[in-house]
Amino acid sequence: MPSRPKPRNALAGRDAAGGCALLIVDMISDWRFADADKLLPPAAAIAPPIAAFKRRCRRAGVPVIYANDNRGQWRSDFRDVVAGSLAVGGDGAGITQLLLPHEDDYFVLKPKHSAFFGTPLDLLLQHLKAVKLFVTGAASDQCVVTTAVAARMHDYEVLVPRDCVASQSDERNRRAIEHFEQALDIRTTPSRRIRLPRSS
Amino acid sequence: MPSRPKPRNALAGRDAAGGCALLIVDMISDWRFADADKLLPPAAAIAPPIAAFKRRCRRAGVPVIYANDNRGQWRSDFRDVVAGSLAVGGDGAGITQLLLPHEDDYFVLKPKHSAFFGTPLDLLLQHLKAVKLFVTGAASDQCVVTTAVAARMHDYEVLVPRDCVASQSDERNRRAIEHFEQALDIRTTPSRRIRLPRSS
Amino acid sequence: MPSRPKPRNALAGRDAAGGCALLIVDMISDWRFADADKLLPPAAAIAPPIAAFKRRCRRAGVPVIYANDNRGQWRSDFRDVVAGSLAVGGDGAGITQLLLPHEDDYFVLKPKHSAFFGTPLDLLLQHLKAVKLFVTGAASDQCVVTTAVAARMHDYEVLVPRDCVASQSDERNRRAIEHFEQALDIRTTPSRRIRLPRSS
Amino acid sequence: MPSRPKPRNALAGRDAAGGCALLIVDMISDWRFADADKLLPPAAAIAPPIAAFKRRCRRAGVPVIYANDNRGQWRSDFRDVVAGSLAVGGDGAGITQLLLPHEDDYFVLKPKHSAFFGTPLDLLLQHLKAVKLFVTGAASDQCVVTTAVAARMHDYEVLVPRDCVASQSDERNRRAIEHFEQALDIRTTPSRRIRLPRSS
Repeated sequence: MPSRPKPRNALAGRDAAGGCALLIVDMISDWRFADADKLLPPAAAIAPPIAAFKRRCRRAGVPVIYANDNRGQWRSDFRDVVAGSLAVGGDGAGITQLLLPHEDDYFVLKPKHSAFFGTPLDLLLQHLKAVKLFVTGAASDQCVVTTAVAARMHDYEVLVPRDCVASQSDERNRRAIEHFEQALDIRTTPSRRIRLPRSS
Repeated sequence: MPSRPKPRNALAGRDAAGGCALLIVDMISDWRFADADKLLPPAAAIAPPIAAFKRRCRRAGVPVIYANDNRGQWRSDFRDVVAGSLAVGGDGAGITQLLLPHEDDYFVLKPKHSAFFGTPLDLLLQHLKAVKLFVTGAASDQCVVTTAVAARMHDYEVLVPRDCVASQSDERNRRAIEHFEQALDIRTTPSRRIRLPRSS
Repeated sequence: MPSRPKPRNALAGRDAAGGCALLIVDMISDWRFADADKLLPPAAAIAPPIAAFKRRCRRAGVPVIYANDNRGQWRSDFRDVVAGSLAVGGDGAGITQLLLPHEDDYFVLKPKHSAFFGTPLDLLLQHLKAVKLFVTGAASDQCVVTTAVAARMHDYEVLVPRDCVASQSDERNRRAIEHFEQALDIRTTPSRRIRLPRSS
Repeated sequence: MPSRPKPRNALAGRDAAGGCALLIVDMISDWRFADADKLLPPAAAIAPPIAAFKRRCRRAGVPVIYANDNRGQWRSDFRDVVAGSLAVGGDGAGITQLLLPHEDDYFVLKPKHSAFFGTPLDLLLQHLKAVKLFVTGAASDQCVVTTAVAARMHDYEVLVPRDCVASQSDERNRRAIEHFEQALDIRTTPSRRIRLPRSS
């Protein structure tokens, strides 16, 4: 079957195992924004399962992509975001420690809710030959849902590991998961049930 | 204050009154898709208030834009969609009769959920000098919310006339409206409460 | 190899033969715009080779996509553009007669130079499983080059049939072809030299 | 006149003076790519006039935006690109020294030719309230022209300071400038002739 030619100036390294990629949305932050006090505890609660799922993904050859807000205006880098989060300390720094990016992880800085808007994410996924996305992070009814729907519009298959998303309250998170399933035709499942391309 | 130069090949006619525009999402259809039987009755119920609000908008000089799925593959036109809907008859044709596009209304055919994705909508709104969108139509927790969030990402102010959106069930619609208010920072209000730029 | 799942609401019919698609840019027009008098004769001259190449493409199962300006503001349809061109008569109508769209050809109405900007073209090509584009039409140093570069940015392979593009003067067309080859890494070749997927 | 509401999470600091912004395309590089040996000398020749024009822009309150390729895959930051360029030494490092980004300059990392493709540039310019772009850098017939046309498609006014663009040869640069003027309706002028919003 024909496929688009390998671009000379590839954004990605080796191909995504099994065509899968893991997206971690807005977990690295200095948690200085409205509602941050409500979102931080649930976010801290999902950091360990995301970290565990990330370990499985990396072992399986599934690339990991961080999608993060750039709150310091359009002058800072992802490394600044990571460093800024660690500098603040507290639960936010704890999350960042658990989810500390590896050298060969990818990242995009997003200016708005969706990780596809104003970023090279779609192109990066094409270069990775990814067709299926695991979307994790916070908040499930804000940036996560917006990113997941954008992925569907770009014809990616989307799977949301249910224990790896959170919102400002359990009630809002529960409704977000219902929204995925009921209205958006996006499957959710516990992360441990997700079969990755190779043994884990 | 500087503003972008008037493009020679403008998509729009006269400027939007008060910088406002009315968007009507997915109300013109042949209602031949999964779930159509569930969505048609609530859609029929909001057609009269949308028609009334559209009349007020037109009197006030607020441009009206239809955003519709193109289900006949990428070969059909909006006129075909309108004609197809009327040909089918029944409640769907009744909606189309109520909301029959005027000669000077605008339309975009959208390939996916959001009316901004793969369409000239953002450009059209810029040419209209619109900065505030009234988003109406169905389903509130599918194409309407996706379009409303995309409008916010493009920095438009968004207002959802609460009686002019519907979903497959009242429960889903009620939750969608909560989702707008609570998580997406999008205001909703009864359409009759919306003050339009000029007397109505 | 994994590929993106077949979307339920596909824009396209059967897959593009050999992953190829033919793009015809701005040949259907009422030729009422600045410079139209200069562009019309060279455009008329390339209409026969484009028509011949289109016949070969259709026989080979290579889908044909018309990308056209929408000069009648965002209210008209492609059928209007075709009818409007025929109504004007003269050389412009002659081109349209030669290149009259077939029922199963595709089209996008573009608001600006590039056929990818504000249109569903990238999505349509993905649904067609097209990876290689033959870009034809006018003007070679305006909409054609802008569309060809956009195709490269989306990682499509691009081939320009040299006898199927024109500009306001032979000199400008010659330079455009040099520009493709020299600066943009886009190959050009006589259309009869292009091998299509199946017998022609 | 209505304008889009000030977004809470603005990408930009204070508004662009006179609605103007300076774009510097692909001047910061390690110059390790095909053709780099041909492009480096002409690029070095335009670095001093770009630096002089940048000084005038900064004094006038015109924001400066660097748009650069990210050749290190989607893992590196703009600071890495700057540091990498300085580390290589030679003429490339000399250019980077002359054009060293200031703390309050902006930047976007672009994955492809156009600085608008897969980046937040359009949004950043909206937040700056910029409507007129000075486009500088290299190569004039590759990334510069692609960026300039994209700016026009987004309805920005574009002005190319003629002494601030270069290509692999003088001949190619001369043709690129003709292409701007003749086919793309983009004005070019010596940078010293450009009147900036405030005294310089």
